Amino acid sequence: MNRRHLLRSGAALGGLLAMPLRASLRPEDLIGKSKWDLDTPALCVDLDKLERNLAAVHTRLDGTGVGVRPHVKTHKCPALARMQMEAGALGVCAAKLTESEVMLENGVPEVLMTGVNVTKRKIAHAMELRRKHPGFIQAVDNETNARDLQDAAAALGIVADVVVDVDVFGRSGAPAGKPALRLAQQVDRSPNLELRGILAYDGPSQHVHGHAARKARTLEAMAPVVETRELMDAAGLNLGIFSGAGTGTYDMMDTLPGFTDVQVGSYLFMDCQYLDIGGADNDEVYEDFESSLTVLATVINANSPQEKLITDAGSKALTLNQPPARVIGEPGFVYAARSDEYGIVTVADASRDYKVGDVLELIVPHCDPAVNLYDVIFGIRGDRVESILPVLARGKSQ
Amino acid sequence: MNRRHLLRSGAALGGLLAMPLRASLRPEDLIGKSKWDLDTPALCVDLDKLERNLAAVHTRLDGTGVGVRPHVKTHKCPALARMQMEAGALGVCAAKLTESEVMLENGVPEVLMTGVNVTKRKIAHAMELRRKHPGFIQAVDNETNARDLQDAAAALGIVADVVVDVDVFGRSGAPAGKPALRLAQQVDRSPNLELRGILAYDGPSQHVHGHAARKARTLEAMAPVVETRELMDAAGLNLGIFSGAGTGTYDMMDTLPGFTDVQVGSYLFMDCQYLDIGGADNDEVYEDFESSLTVLATVINANSPQEKLITDAGSKALTLNQPPARVIGEPGFVYAARSDEYGIVTVADASRDYKVGDVLELIVPHCDPAVNLYDVIFGIRGDRVESILPVLARGKSQ
Repeated sequence: MNRRHLLRSGAALGGLLAMPLRASLRPEDLIGKSKWDLDTPALCVDLDKLERNLAAVHTRLDGTGVGVRPHVKTHKCPALARMQMEAGALGVCAAKLTESEVMLENGVPEVLMTGVNVTKRKIAHAMELRRKHPGFIQAVDNETNARDLQDAAAALGIVADVVVDVDVFGRSGAPAGKPALRLAQQVDRSPNLELRGILAYDGPSQHVHGHAARKARTLEAMAPVVETRELMDAAGLNLGIFSGAGTGTYDMMDTLPGFTDVQVGSYLFMDCQYLDIGGADNDEVYEDFESSLTVLATVINANSPQEKLITDAGSKALTLNQPPARVIGEPGFVYAARSDEYGIVTVADASRDYKVGDVLELIVPHCDPAVNLYDVIFGIRGDRVESILPVLARGKSQ
Repeated sequence: MNRRHLLRSGAALGGLLAMPLRASLRPEDLIGKSKWDLDTPALCVDLDKLERNLAAVHTRLDGTGVGVRPHVKTHKCPALARMQMEAGALGVCAAKLTESEVMLENGVPEVLMTGVNVTKRKIAHAMELRRKHPGFIQAVDNETNARDLQDAAAALGIVADVVVDVDVFGRSGAPAGKPALRLAQQVDRSPNLELRGILAYDGPSQHVHGHAARKARTLEAMAPVVETRELMDAAGLNLGIFSGAGTGTYDMMDTLPGFTDVQVGSYLFMDCQYLDIGGADNDEVYEDFESSLTVLATVINANSPQEKLITDAGSKALTLNQPPARVIGEPGFVYAARSDEYGIVTVADASRDYKVGDVLELIVPHCDPAVNLYDVIFGIRGDRVESILPVLARGKSQ
């Protein structure tokens, strides 16, 4: 059949996948242009704010003994990971194997993969990656998987770097205490695995409202991990890495014995979810980092402009995450991205009259999955496009 | 600065953007393989079911006088749009300009863009597209925009095909009645615009539970549009197109005078949202079309397999849409994709024991935004990969 033949044709497919971006997205056309002239929806990062965020986390942690290992699942962008390394990161974290690969293949030398690889296919792929890139570190959270990693590393004749993921809230990791200890000992005994330490991410604490409440909760959640680390230490295991925490808890970990680095991701961009958690100095708004990431959206229908504006940025441009996107400069706007293709703004109060064609600038609800919708981020300085950042690991959820 | 130089480098960027898919995604490696060996999360379509869905909508509408103009925002895949044309579609709909462009540039001859282009940049781009592709039809929903379209078409020396979008539920479109009539007359008088008819999409009715309730609601919602069409008809306007409806209401439009075609999208794939609306023959489950689209996910943690399984498919693989993904063959599983990178399955009852490495097959909550997360859809026949369908318009939300 003609149709099946078309679908099967490898040659045709290769040609289609290599199709260049259309003319208007070529950097030479857009560099130097005003951001207000970009085709929308457009994902933008304010480079001044980004650079201040990049520096702020190091300034804040300077002298605490806690290092920074940023999580690239937030931006999926090797150019930003390289900036993080230049700013003083120990390495980066990645969530998935294909995401790790994109980083390692694009100039990011140190990648700790926080997820596990459990299938034969993925383990083989991970070991090939480790053979090529000595800076690749893998997580493990069960004994069968540790045996599989050992076998695959032995088959390739390599020694692979491994951290044990310790469970904090029942999502990933080996149970704290003896199970995690036994697993670390197993890794330590495995001739083709090199135990580098542990990983323990406390997800639920990141968005607890209020700095003091957040600190109390994460220290309590991490207590079993600290005890587990002490068991491992007493057993003479290597604990060069004790990695955890995120943008909500990065400044609370220096009291944990042996803690080495924070896996901050959102600090670079910020989003509505993190703005709402409150900080040490301001209980209502988290001000440690600036909102550098925005989406530009255009008003496409204004039949009742005093009540409602329709834009071209719906859930395919912003995701369904809550709280809703915030329109910069318009606290009286409530933005709904429930519709796939349309944004619906309920207008309680407006600073000016809006009409079709006007552009709104939005802070995104949750940065990680929003960035994952776009092929490029426009780097903006002032109001001008200075750079175009390809989101090379976009869609790399394998 | 070194870093800025790197980001600015157009040459380096071109190279990165053209980076080929990694070896394991090359079709020659995967064609003929079992779907259960695919790297996960993987988006799959069962080709037998897809082909039956493709035929079913035509069979059902045969003899009613209502045609089919499928909406490609669902699949964003020119190969599937070409199959829809071969199956007898009058043309396809697309939501956005870049999506329309990908279709027209990849062998889909007739594209009706249901969204509007309101900025200078987009209007110029749309007119260039119309000059190149005579099968491109644009929507308009306000008088200023109609003037801008006329000016841009005149500047290029072309006549552009236009439909008037008539508002049904306050999201897009000109108000029904005299405003829509005046707009259609304005288009009709514009020397460089060709009025082709009207468009009226009734979004909220698509997911009303129960066939009878759905029909009553959509006929009521469409009544002002029908009256508007009569005004236009009396004014001697061309109404060759009267397009609307979707997968939930495709079989209810033949009583509307002059109605020409349904903009079905989800019928090809189905999803949990549509399964729940109920059909004419079964009030609980909508059975007009089969669930052809699935995501494969791997169990990556099973510390408490009687209560909970963790998978590698979270919101970046499934979106946050509700109702939750359904695990095929396991009605006792409740799937939560709230976490960006992880799926969390609450196990009330299981048909068998599950362990790390097992693969689950999921019906997605809402097909359109889920497909928009993936670069390719694997075409599956039986359990084997038969074809790889590039989602070429993925991320084309501009």
